[in-house]
Amino acid sequence: MQFNEFLNNLSNYEPGKDIEVIAKEYKLKEVIKLASNENPLGTAPKVIQTLKTYADKAHLYPDDSMSELKSKLCAKFGIKDKELIIGAGSDQVIEFAVHAKLNPKNAFLQCKATFAMYEIYAKQCGAKCYKSKSLGHDLKEFKELYEAHKDEIKMIFLCVPNNPLGECLNAHDVKEFIKIVDEDCMVVIDAAYNEFASYKDKEKHLEAKELISQFNNVLYLGTFSKLYGLGGLRVGYGIADEHLIKALYKLRAPFNVNILALKAACAALEDIEFLTQSLKNNFTQMTKYEEFAQTHNLEFILSYTNFITYFFNEKNSTDLSEKLLKKGIIIRNLKSYGLNALRITIGTAYENSRFFEEFSQILKG
Amino acid sequence: MQFNEFLNNLSNYEPGKDIEVIAKEYKLKEVIKLASNENPLGTAPKVIQTLKTYADKAHLYPDDSMSELKSKLCAKFGIKDKELIIGAGSDQVIEFAVHAKLNPKNAFLQCKATFAMYEIYAKQCGAKCYKSKSLGHDLKEFKELYEAHKDEIKMIFLCVPNNPLGECLNAHDVKEFIKIVDEDCMVVIDAAYNEFASYKDKEKHLEAKELISQFNNVLYLGTFSKLYGLGGLRVGYGIADEHLIKALYKLRAPFNVNILALKAACAALEDIEFLTQSLKNNFTQMTKYEEFAQTHNLEFILSYTNFITYFFNEKNSTDLSEKLLKKGIIIRNLKSYGLNALRITIGTAYENSRFFEEFSQILKG
Repeated sequence: MQFNEFLNNLSNYEPGKDIEVIAKEYKLKEVIKLASNENPLGTAPKVIQTLKTYADKAHLYPDDSMSELKSKLCAKFGIKDKELIIGAGSDQVIEFAVHAKLNPKNAFLQCKATFAMYEIYAKQCGAKCYKSKSLGHDLKEFKELYEAHKDEIKMIFLCVPNNPLGECLNAHDVKEFIKIVDEDCMVVIDAAYNEFASYKDKEKHLEAKELISQFNNVLYLGTFSKLYGLGGLRVGYGIADEHLIKALYKLRAPFNVNILALKAACAALEDIEFLTQSLKNNFTQMTKYEEFAQTHNLEFILSYTNFITYFFNEKNSTDLSEKLLKKGIIIRNLKSYGLNALRITIGTAYENSRFFEEFSQILKG
Repeated sequence: MQFNEFLNNLSNYEPGKDIEVIAKEYKLKEVIKLASNENPLGTAPKVIQTLKTYADKAHLYPDDSMSELKSKLCAKFGIKDKELIIGAGSDQVIEFAVHAKLNPKNAFLQCKATFAMYEIYAKQCGAKCYKSKSLGHDLKEFKELYEAHKDEIKMIFLCVPNNPLGECLNAHDVKEFIKIVDEDCMVVIDAAYNEFASYKDKEKHLEAKELISQFNNVLYLGTFSKLYGLGGLRVGYGIADEHLIKALYKLRAPFNVNILALKAACAALEDIEFLTQSLKNNFTQMTKYEEFAQTHNLEFILSYTNFITYFFNEKNSTDLSEKLLKKGIIIRNLKSYGLNALRITIGTAYENSRFFEEFSQILKG
């Protein structure tokens, strides 16, 4: 059977390995996963309670208007219902945006090492990709590239802070940059980890309402997968001018977010204690990773997220990650990003000490 | 901002109304929903237990290989891992198939009144739609239409049994029809309700393994949303030749089915008692709907599903459904399908008697 030609050019995302699968494969009793930037404190107590309460509602289709979660998010961000779309992860909102805007005749711009899904979705539309030479976000370079290809570039991705590197632009610089961008070019601000950056440094805080009031070409993305601890349930959202949101809605299939995910996200917004603890644990533990890097002479980028990325010169990241896997520790090898680097999620104190213990042995070997 | 032109031609699905939303809007204490073909016996006990057990795993990304559910489905259908894809509802598998195959230069074929998502997804690809004149599946007419436009038609949808009408083709006739279809034309057999049809009449039973062994252009679709009682969790699957499955996989985003949905589907497959009770309740209660129609002189199609469709001549279906809504009963008005008809999900004995009580009053008025 013949399929549409564009399928030949597609690639798939390489997800983090699953704990149960690895435990079985390597016959391990304990597996520690520091690979997917999940919340190491687990699922928020209020979420667990809510999931148990609604477990007997799994047979009912979700409320397709998502009115309960939408009203809570509108209140949180001070925005209108029409300025919000909810997706199965912010990934899905990226998918809608890319399909609404990109095509084989235009192009998009991103930095060299950033969230892989931008390019994966954009390839589905046949759009051309411009990448900065710098690994992370260098806005001077972005400006040059944008101005050189202004007629073509119809979408710009800014990942603030950036995954998988961890660096973060200042909110002020982001806004100054958007000013030079044409109204017909969509600027996607992926704020999946912005709660972490904001906690560490107020200058990194992006205010969705302010952004969309000032710019009608900005799409702000947030997620429940990271700080809110709902990676497994797939809930994210996009905030933008209502004209832009309306276009994305046309691509949304009914019931795109499941009933338990909607209920859990409502509960997650309310578990303030869990959120505070999560932020606190993250940056207390982050310093240990910085210290470990200094002790072992490892290169790293100062991180504004819930992970840290170590770079290697002589050692090989694939080799290192396989050795860790055999010890029951899953981290993220960044080889698929073209980097000789490992991305490690900041875990609990125990998980991190297990990592340091095993990794220092491996580095010696 | 400008968007891709194809967005202008898109339409959205009109989902059934939500119980909580209607209760609030009409200030009702009791709302009975017989609109979305959900399982009236609720969520299976084994599923409820499983959801409670895994409630504290919501922070973990799902196993993207879906190995546990895939191995259970492979065992159930006697197929290989490579012949199976799992989607967020069988809807999502339809989406993959349509995007993999259709484009502005080709066309698809379906009967006049069938599941609305086929056309909604196909419009996203700009493909031309051929519909039979007959409301339901008339294979003689399908054959004529197919042969007249053989070069164009690259996808045929057979909904067996058909939603929203309820009629069902015999498995033998389906197979005879596929024989005349060119190998390069994909035949999508939507078996979302086939468990109900098979229970009522063995001649309606479609055996996925047999179909894909005989035809490498068949995509068989199943769902957990109906009999298995997981409408709210969005899990469905496609079974086909591995070459076809491989093409669909290219369009699948990572983590397309959430962690609780995967666990719940595994449990749902094992709750045999719940499935047996659901089938029994459905057809015991169905006879009451047939009797009601005869008593009130209503036209209906013999149904092989978990719903029944009543047609009206003088009365107006929109008017009738609004009157029912005010009484706290949600059913599905088929006006958006161009029909003066109502589709009613077979509920529990209590729900159905409430419907009969209110509807007989409304019909008198």
